[in-house]
Amino acid sequence: MLNIATPYLVFLGDTVNPLDAKTGRGLVDWRPEQCIGQLRLPGCTVDLGLPDMTPAGAVAAGAKSLVIGIATTGGQIHPDWIAIFKEALDAGLDIVSGMHTRLANVGNLADHAAAKGRQLVDVRVPPAGLPVGSGRKRTGKRLLTVGTDCCVGKKYTALSVHAELARRGVPATFRATGQTGIMIAGEGIPIDAVVSDFVSGAAEALSPDNDAEHWDIIEGQGSLFHPAYAAVTLGLLHGSQPDALVLCHEAGRPHIDEYPGYPIPGLEECMAHYLAAAQLTNSAVQFVGISVNTASLDEKGRQDYLAEVAAKVRLPVVDPMAGGVASIVDRIMERE
Amino acid sequence: MLNIATPYLVFLGDTVNPLDAKTGRGLVDWRPEQCIGQLRLPGCTVDLGLPDMTPAGAVAAGAKSLVIGIATTGGQIHPDWIAIFKEALDAGLDIVSGMHTRLANVGNLADHAAAKGRQLVDVRVPPAGLPVGSGRKRTGKRLLTVGTDCCVGKKYTALSVHAELARRGVPATFRATGQTGIMIAGEGIPIDAVVSDFVSGAAEALSPDNDAEHWDIIEGQGSLFHPAYAAVTLGLLHGSQPDALVLCHEAGRPHIDEYPGYPIPGLEECMAHYLAAAQLTNSAVQFVGISVNTASLDEKGRQDYLAEVAAKVRLPVVDPMAGGVASIVDRIMERE
Repeated sequence: MLNIATPYLVFLGDTVNPLDAKTGRGLVDWRPEQCIGQLRLPGCTVDLGLPDMTPAGAVAAGAKSLVIGIATTGGQIHPDWIAIFKEALDAGLDIVSGMHTRLANVGNLADHAAAKGRQLVDVRVPPAGLPVGSGRKRTGKRLLTVGTDCCVGKKYTALSVHAELARRGVPATFRATGQTGIMIAGEGIPIDAVVSDFVSGAAEALSPDNDAEHWDIIEGQGSLFHPAYAAVTLGLLHGSQPDALVLCHEAGRPHIDEYPGYPIPGLEECMAHYLAAAQLTNSAVQFVGISVNTASLDEKGRQDYLAEVAAKVRLPVVDPMAGGVASIVDRIMERE
Repeated sequence: MLNIATPYLVFLGDTVNPLDAKTGRGLVDWRPEQCIGQLRLPGCTVDLGLPDMTPAGAVAAGAKSLVIGIATTGGQIHPDWIAIFKEALDAGLDIVSGMHTRLANVGNLADHAAAKGRQLVDVRVPPAGLPVGSGRKRTGKRLLTVGTDCCVGKKYTALSVHAELARRGVPATFRATGQTGIMIAGEGIPIDAVVSDFVSGAAEALSPDNDAEHWDIIEGQGSLFHPAYAAVTLGLLHGSQPDALVLCHEAGRPHIDEYPGYPIPGLEECMAHYLAAAQLTNSAVQFVGISVNTASLDEKGRQDYLAEVAAKVRLPVVDPMAGGVASIVDRIMERE
């Protein structure tokens, strides 16, 4: 499993579009205590509300890694970032990237890092030596967020459930499976980058045996109803062996994003498919709630939508951005 | 997609166990016209019935590649094979391997091949640049073999159906997804070695648009009921968009091989799960038969078993090794 040295100096380049700084924003929202400062190049207008720092200043303040907090079109690392990355390595920081380009393939960063004894961490690269799945039942409890589609709030929901459990003093760990999640957690496995033969085994390795009362809250990926990514979803589901599932959905989304020929099934049908698949490795699996992104609705529309779904499925139905996930966590605690 | 130069000189090393020569045997059984000769080192007692040849002799007879026809424990390439591989490269042959070890990582074979302008082909390495799945419906028809478990005859069944279609003059292509299948076909994609995000896309690339009456007969992998490999199976199923499925099974196998906690569901339950999953990308998918390995039964036991299953599922039920697959191909032709 990847292990990232924290806390972070968040690099924002010369970004002017706040949406491009999604990774940095996620870090500040979910791990404010790990964000020491921000590093902005001339022209950058995005502000995460962190102190502006040079690499040397960040090291003095305790930072261990410079993390690329922005996503660029095509996932490329800009050539004009190299000089500041070398300055960061010189100052004693690792570099952490979720870009497609591997850090080791850019300029002569690899030589520079080696000379300074620092790490280049590409969070999209899975660890070597992953096992194939064993199917063996593990100790401890697990919750997995699953989706009607990609980008419906699986990471946000998992982080919200984890935060609520922590607030109540329940032992729990957020298990990251995607690049932003891994930067937030400081560790994890980029599950969609794992060779297909090893996806279930990677998911098993991600949430190992634990104390009987401990919950792993696992970030879901993709969707069983996605014609491109369902394999990732199924391998993660089988290897996670979840006791509890939360279905994530975006209100009003008619079909799989960018796949107009693939309508999203009704929520109850989605749940039935997920349960049938999950039962292979954990016959006791249950849904404990539904998490809906209702950003497209007004306040009345949101309340009506959530109430209507709740009446159908007889489960807690929430929008974590508007009201939180307390009722889902109540449900998790009740079923013990 | 991998493309392998044929015909072959089949390398058997110093093998004494016929089971270790499974790949070579598969080539001789299914592509006898592509097997020019065999190359045996001193001590080899396995005989595929091919003329013994040196690399130079094989080239003179028309061979284009030396293919490693044996599997060793751990999938290692023995150091004492290097000299003969270099001799083969010198003579003008490519080297084709399905071993875990990459040919390019052995001795200085890579330099030697480059100097001679020859290819080192590792069939377990998927091609670069595979796309993610599009979910777009393709022209032509497709049959996929699916299994209750691994090693239940999915490759053998697909090859048998392809051969029977060819015998009847129906345009058809065998599409290989595993190492032995790829050597038999001379091309294909090792689907279980593809990064999970691209499995469906790889399966789409493997069976592209074709003539309306053309059948791609696709070699299945793994099983939806396998706790380690179901992701591979689902991605291949979604990307293949099969019109027809054949369920493959071994009579009497109680549970997933080497996973005693995972009983194999009843055949009708297996079929229901496969249909539900396959309908995502092709709503018209149907089963056209069941293929059973009945090697563990005597003649009466076999006939009783096949008849009993056929009465339940109302489909052709065959053992391709004992009776062939004609009734399944009849069914394929009827449904048009």
